[in-house]
Amino acid sequence: MKEAVELHKGQFIEELKQYLSIPSISSLSKHKEDVKEAADWTASALKKAGMENVEVIPTEGHPIVYADWLHAKGKPTVLVYGHYDVQPEDPIDLWETPPFEPVIRDGKIFARGATDDKGQLFIHIKAVDLLMKEKGELPVNVKFVIEGEEEIASPNLGPFIQDNEEKLACDAVVISDTSFSEKGQPAICTSLRGALAMELTVTTANSDLHSGTYGGGVPNSIHALVQLLDSLHEENGRIAVEGFYKGVPEPTEALRKEVAEVPFNEERTKQELELDELFGEEGFTFHERVGIRPTLEINGITGGFQGEGLKTIVPKEASAKISCRLVGGQDPQKVFEAIQRHVADNRPVGAKVDLHQYIKADPVAIDSKNPYIQKAADAFESVYDVRPLFPKEGGSIPIVEVFGRVLDAPVVLMGFGLPTENLHAPNEHFHLENFTKGIETVCKYLQEL
Amino acid sequence: MKEAVELHKGQFIEELKQYLSIPSISSLSKHKEDVKEAADWTASALKKAGMENVEVIPTEGHPIVYADWLHAKGKPTVLVYGHYDVQPEDPIDLWETPPFEPVIRDGKIFARGATDDKGQLFIHIKAVDLLMKEKGELPVNVKFVIEGEEEIASPNLGPFIQDNEEKLACDAVVISDTSFSEKGQPAICTSLRGALAMELTVTTANSDLHSGTYGGGVPNSIHALVQLLDSLHEENGRIAVEGFYKGVPEPTEALRKEVAEVPFNEERTKQELELDELFGEEGFTFHERVGIRPTLEINGITGGFQGEGLKTIVPKEASAKISCRLVGGQDPQKVFEAIQRHVADNRPVGAKVDLHQYIKADPVAIDSKNPYIQKAADAFESVYDVRPLFPKEGGSIPIVEVFGRVLDAPVVLMGFGLPTENLHAPNEHFHLENFTKGIETVCKYLQEL
Repeated sequence: MKEAVELHKGQFIEELKQYLSIPSISSLSKHKEDVKEAADWTASALKKAGMENVEVIPTEGHPIVYADWLHAKGKPTVLVYGHYDVQPEDPIDLWETPPFEPVIRDGKIFARGATDDKGQLFIHIKAVDLLMKEKGELPVNVKFVIEGEEEIASPNLGPFIQDNEEKLACDAVVISDTSFSEKGQPAICTSLRGALAMELTVTTANSDLHSGTYGGGVPNSIHALVQLLDSLHEENGRIAVEGFYKGVPEPTEALRKEVAEVPFNEERTKQELELDELFGEEGFTFHERVGIRPTLEINGITGGFQGEGLKTIVPKEASAKISCRLVGGQDPQKVFEAIQRHVADNRPVGAKVDLHQYIKADPVAIDSKNPYIQKAADAFESVYDVRPLFPKEGGSIPIVEVFGRVLDAPVVLMGFGLPTENLHAPNEHFHLENFTKGIETVCKYLQEL
Repeated sequence: MKEAVELHKGQFIEELKQYLSIPSISSLSKHKEDVKEAADWTASALKKAGMENVEVIPTEGHPIVYADWLHAKGKPTVLVYGHYDVQPEDPIDLWETPPFEPVIRDGKIFARGATDDKGQLFIHIKAVDLLMKEKGELPVNVKFVIEGEEEIASPNLGPFIQDNEEKLACDAVVISDTSFSEKGQPAICTSLRGALAMELTVTTANSDLHSGTYGGGVPNSIHALVQLLDSLHEENGRIAVEGFYKGVPEPTEALRKEVAEVPFNEERTKQELELDELFGEEGFTFHERVGIRPTLEINGITGGFQGEGLKTIVPKEASAKISCRLVGGQDPQKVFEAIQRHVADNRPVGAKVDLHQYIKADPVAIDSKNPYIQKAADAFESVYDVRPLFPKEGGSIPIVEVFGRVLDAPVVLMGFGLPTENLHAPNEHFHLENFTKGIETVCKYLQEL
């Protein structure tokens, strides 16, 4: 299929640019219409690719796009999952070019959603398109389920899967929303951490107070918040919340060896990201920390005066966004309750404390020996001339656990991104080489199944 | 003068409304023209009041307004200081009516600058106006020095005073920028705390990073910042910076007794401000904490994602605004250096730390037995039927120390505000009763000198 991809790639990239120019930010209500537009765009791209029964299914949030082609009698059925929603563009001033005006530089396409996940999802749509163009049919049965709420933790897709078990029945779920280990080294992720996100708000008074008149005599919401937040970690990087580590498996020697096989160039990482030092839980390597250990990270903090110059107030309220990555048998709900208890037990004098839960998702482990995964590895190898690794990914795709459990099918996480492509950050991009080779790989995979 | 004030008060309040409608926020560069407009407005109000040699003097920042009337041969000279600049209106959504559209409700005028300091300054301008109207002359010589940079720590007024020692020579400096102890109980402040303000910025990487890919394995700027900030205080409210308390006098029994004389209704304060508890340095009362003890307050904090919902990033940068109130022999420069050392000694792994100094000002103590202060107390007593208290004020007016030192004159802090008038906060207001009685009091004071 290499020649066919080569022939159409100019057209495919033009289409991808259109797709990427829709600001489908699911977390911001002002973009609701844009998210809808991206859903419709996805649906018509599927129709154009020859898929049938294309539906844009409304939910309480953003729509789910469904399509299928089920004429490969006796052949397996593959369900492709992806998402057409994207992260906010903030901080906007750090983008070199506007996030929703896709630009190609040095063989990379720059735009919000380029690698996460429109670019990777579009690989599957174009693979199907190409197979239909070349052969007039597909070698296997294919279903697509594309959602618009992945970046806000898929609140409606879980129930949809539960309610449509039969419609979605399949032999394997294929997802491209992860990344290579490094450039040229494909990877099929075999573990995803669970997730838990929340917001901690501290209130001390009904108004900001003059720090001259009241400072030193009344509680300060920011002091209280930093005291609480600082109490969440020990100095050695370990999380200090009692009960947090319950269900975290002690890593076996075999697992540590497997993790150590994924290449890691510490000096290059430090240089690229301008890190003075790496830092994390004592006693673990970088890949162990981000792959098989749980984390608790503060993602944002806000309180008091933030304008130019100064304003001498005692701030009445401050808050922080916190998220955890969970592993093994950690139960997100139990972890949330442990943090709730910690916050209550450590409440500073005069602080009213509120802990609001946003999302939770169970951790997932996948057996790399499953034939659907080994076939995917073969397809990668035939295109990239190197066998994929099977890393433990640090990220979370909450819906993966639901797909695996409800549909009782193996989940194949064949990612085409690179870890350096700034997903969730300014200047997100996607290597076009992996876009075109990705289409080849998926065609190969569907043909070989 | 009571009848004269009564006769003109409608007109005076209309003029005050005009003055308050100019958004002269000195800290925000976009308001530069508004600040200039307020300077011009002040100058013409002084001219209208019969003052002579009115000048709007440019500086490197906002202008200084000067005026005098020097025909009271053999009589003392009083220099009135005030400021026409105001604090930012932020947070704007908590104002019940727009900050620069003055409104009168329940005998109070609501607007940014109502009590701090346009309303209080305008008392002096209208007192002079009234005396000129009634008598055709003033009972003493009067000079006005009105600046537009008090809220940003008077960077240009200090040098101006140094360069114009002769022009500004006087027997007393009168300032109305403080407040009563409570409604009906006037106060002449006899102590001001020094000030020191700074911004602490922590950087860990050159980009926000995906918390799934990097979380737990790289330093998090917010973790580092909260760790540093939390290390600034002990749990008992004491400041943990080595050397911070150098120069702070041990309070004598006499001083503690004097401080205890200022009335304080703890329950009412807690109720009004919706405080669960008071909090401060162990071993001191509320009035000691805010009046004679130094403080270190975090005024604002920002970092990472602050939008709606969540964004699972490891933030690259976070910062906090910090200000200190200083007392006794504390040297602001030495305190800054002590904090710098503390920050360097406690620098978290992988954190690049920057501490930027905004302002500093020495503490001031004033002898309440000075005759210019006792005469002011007499004037208050004749209008309010109660003798003023002489409290130790917690706030800082950095320029007071310079006035006292350079001009070698007593500083009379005859405030007409109330501590509950929301200065530096939303819904700032000023009691019109104290506006009109203030004019009476100032007329009386000038006549009796």
